[in-house]
Amino acid sequence: MSLTDRTKPTDVALNTDLYELTMAQGFWESGLADTQACFNVFFRENPFGGGYAVACGMGQIADLVENFVFDDDALSYLGSLPAPGGGKMFKQGFIDYLRDFRLHVSVWAVPEGDIVFPREPMVRVEGPIIDCQLMETALLNLVNFQTLVATKTARVVQSAQGHPVSDFGLRRAQGPDGGLAVARASYVGGASSTSNVLAGKIYGIPVFGTHAHSWVMAFPSELEAFRAFAKSSPKNCVLLVDTYDVKKGIQNAITVAKEMEAKGERLAAIRIDSGDLAKLSKLARKEFDEAGLPYVKISVSNDLDEYTIQSLFAQGAPLDSFGVGTKLATCDPQPSLGGVYKLSATKAQGADKWTPVIKLSEMSYKRTIPGIQHILRFTDAEGVPVGDMIVDDSVARDTTSTIVDIMDSDYTYDVSGYESHELLVQLVEDGRRFGEQQTLEQSKHRCREALMHLDPAVKRFLNPQFYPVGMEPGLAKLRSDLAREERAGSGRHTLA
Amino acid sequence: MSLTDRTKPTDVALNTDLYELTMAQGFWESGLADTQACFNVFFRENPFGGGYAVACGMGQIADLVENFVFDDDALSYLGSLPAPGGGKMFKQGFIDYLRDFRLHVSVWAVPEGDIVFPREPMVRVEGPIIDCQLMETALLNLVNFQTLVATKTARVVQSAQGHPVSDFGLRRAQGPDGGLAVARASYVGGASSTSNVLAGKIYGIPVFGTHAHSWVMAFPSELEAFRAFAKSSPKNCVLLVDTYDVKKGIQNAITVAKEMEAKGERLAAIRIDSGDLAKLSKLARKEFDEAGLPYVKISVSNDLDEYTIQSLFAQGAPLDSFGVGTKLATCDPQPSLGGVYKLSATKAQGADKWTPVIKLSEMSYKRTIPGIQHILRFTDAEGVPVGDMIVDDSVARDTTSTIVDIMDSDYTYDVSGYESHELLVQLVEDGRRFGEQQTLEQSKHRCREALMHLDPAVKRFLNPQFYPVGMEPGLAKLRSDLAREERAGSGRHTLA
Repeated sequence: MSLTDRTKPTDVALNTDLYELTMAQGFWESGLADTQACFNVFFRENPFGGGYAVACGMGQIADLVENFVFDDDALSYLGSLPAPGGGKMFKQGFIDYLRDFRLHVSVWAVPEGDIVFPREPMVRVEGPIIDCQLMETALLNLVNFQTLVATKTARVVQSAQGHPVSDFGLRRAQGPDGGLAVARASYVGGASSTSNVLAGKIYGIPVFGTHAHSWVMAFPSELEAFRAFAKSSPKNCVLLVDTYDVKKGIQNAITVAKEMEAKGERLAAIRIDSGDLAKLSKLARKEFDEAGLPYVKISVSNDLDEYTIQSLFAQGAPLDSFGVGTKLATCDPQPSLGGVYKLSATKAQGADKWTPVIKLSEMSYKRTIPGIQHILRFTDAEGVPVGDMIVDDSVARDTTSTIVDIMDSDYTYDVSGYESHELLVQLVEDGRRFGEQQTLEQSKHRCREALMHLDPAVKRFLNPQFYPVGMEPGLAKLRSDLAREERAGSGRHTLA
Repeated sequence: MSLTDRTKPTDVALNTDLYELTMAQGFWESGLADTQACFNVFFRENPFGGGYAVACGMGQIADLVENFVFDDDALSYLGSLPAPGGGKMFKQGFIDYLRDFRLHVSVWAVPEGDIVFPREPMVRVEGPIIDCQLMETALLNLVNFQTLVATKTARVVQSAQGHPVSDFGLRRAQGPDGGLAVARASYVGGASSTSNVLAGKIYGIPVFGTHAHSWVMAFPSELEAFRAFAKSSPKNCVLLVDTYDVKKGIQNAITVAKEMEAKGERLAAIRIDSGDLAKLSKLARKEFDEAGLPYVKISVSNDLDEYTIQSLFAQGAPLDSFGVGTKLATCDPQPSLGGVYKLSATKAQGADKWTPVIKLSEMSYKRTIPGIQHILRFTDAEGVPVGDMIVDDSVARDTTSTIVDIMDSDYTYDVSGYESHELLVQLVEDGRRFGEQQTLEQSKHRCREALMHLDPAVKRFLNPQFYPVGMEPGLAKLRSDLAREERAGSGRHTLA
């Protein structure tokens, strides 16, 4: 845990897989340190069996790039590492090279909060190959998980039908950073607040929370515990009614609500954290209404996710807000996005043109897309996205408005007649933040807008409609040619 | 991400759910700040459908307690928070109280690396109730995930049959801390190394890694890429052979291995990251053996877990080492342990005896165990654990060696004739580390020893045998009495 282990901001350069450094040393030694490269971050399947993902983490990429230095501490650690076969793992010359190293990359990305689909370049990095390689792990560590959480949250918020959802996941997150990432990304994805105080302080996210079962157990009776809490937090009073028996808990909460009314105060809500939430919330609503307390809201928690909330509303549960913890923080049942970072083009020092490259692998679904990729998003007159086209400006462009499917090049989509806009925006130029960076509130707003315009068929949980994403025909042909040449040849890129 | 967000060690006090602070304010205002409390961390079910868990994270509890302060920055943030109903959330007097606050708790825990079972007090915290409450979230954040990862790793290592397993999970972890926690806990659970360089530096864990597909794609041909890597890292040379075509990759690796031999060097291994790992590894072994290169090892990666590795060996795959990433870092398919922190006893200021308390909840499986709990672990003559008994010394002890099942009090286990030892060890006394803390290497060693002594029937993946854990009969009776009184009464603890 960095909070107990005293990590420091410059440790970001070591927040990496070792192979990035052994490769960097290799590039440096092979004289390829200044070869230019283009890498793309993408994922292969939408998470949770859904129809889309919410891009997130992009708002922290510029910080990552600007903070990326190897301090003395880092260099002395790297210099001390033994090679498994004897001697040192890193040569002194390479350690010296890292001493003044800064990332001279330029970065483009899907705007944080916008919708993104499989195979699209969610982030594109261009720069010296050694720089691109050194930032790979930290970048994936940043965008993989936040994109997953923002997507999960968008689904939970959709199921909550406009009622507020609060992130309660810190205790089940992967350490302090895991908790911060959950709070940040869930806020972008539509959560209204978080229980995580540090996230509140760092990101300015509204914080939410009242009391636990232990509060009730610490007093001689539940009624005394409720009274003490109402006295201490009259303007922030949500009473947890299920420590012993929800029916009695509701009665005790009504007693305290009446006492608060007499003082001109209002009980904000009760929370139920166990049992049949549908049945118990109906009972609570009835009791509070009959007691003349229609304004007391009902909040629930306990292993919630988009499906539980959907089911609760289907049963007519009168719910006003949701605390979603474990399944949000761990993105249950799919705890990873599987985003990868793949090389798509290189340019030797002095060359004036990019050479597109592909990786074939043993599995055809792992074949990459070559080139300097952009995304054109086509939208209809209402602003609803209808298809995304991956284009490479270095390729002779086809003039038709045809998108070629990525997995099956015989399959195409016609987007003629639709407007399009360039989706990727530049975040970093030559290692420095470029232009105004989107604020967290802007990311949240963008997500809300993007989801509002997204076809409901793409948003539904069960068998969502496939959103067309493919390549511009010229790029599709290039990819196909490269794959055939690579398979036929001796492993040589014919364009190199 | 704390590495980009510039968190600092003292932020640990804010790494908490808001309700811990609203409750703390309530305790402070109600004059209960000095009421003593006893809380226990436990989980309700073994993860992954297995028969045990590996306790982990305990080695960082003392740091957490000693670092826990509210600095000016934290206090000014808390002082600025609005209450939802108007005014401030926290009173100035409470903020002032926090200014000089230190945790005056004492902590006992299952030794890191030892085996732990459902319902047992994995960590026991005693101290002023306000202190116990304020550290809840950070403590759960520390031990929940690390226990889960250590357990997952123990399973993966078991499936690897003595061959080394390396943690490759950083890029799929929840930010830098998630990656650090994965590396640390997987090392305790039996991993030999990690790809995470920062974890290597902070914890002294051996680091491992060589090159990625992008290395191969950056050169005009795979053969040239392999040669360049062998030249740059001759003492740490593992060649990834599946960028284009594994069969050709193997031939290129053989060519380079021969060239290395001619220089008195040795190719350490190849790695295969896609395709049918069983079939391809057999092919590779055959080719290397026929080429007179029997020493070249075969390493595999690509979405591995304990079941895939088990299946690969069942197919006779000649594998030497494993890189396990996503499914280790995310603990797929169970990304959370569900550990909770529950109050089990209170002691008013000036009182000389603890008052045991329980939480009933709407679900009987959520009923807690009262009292100041210890664990006696019974072992046979070979040191194999046969059953754990939760005891409370404040309760009149039954003299028989009977363990009463937690879920069904009519069910008992007889442990007469077995030796027993006290499992929990003290880590913290009155806010300061107590005695010598176990090192990470000692935790790793303890885990290996504990797993070696554990009954194989408890360790198997499919339908593992249930390991008996229960209560001493006097404690079982106390729990039963408290539950009946609580249900019958008006919510009043009769012992208070």
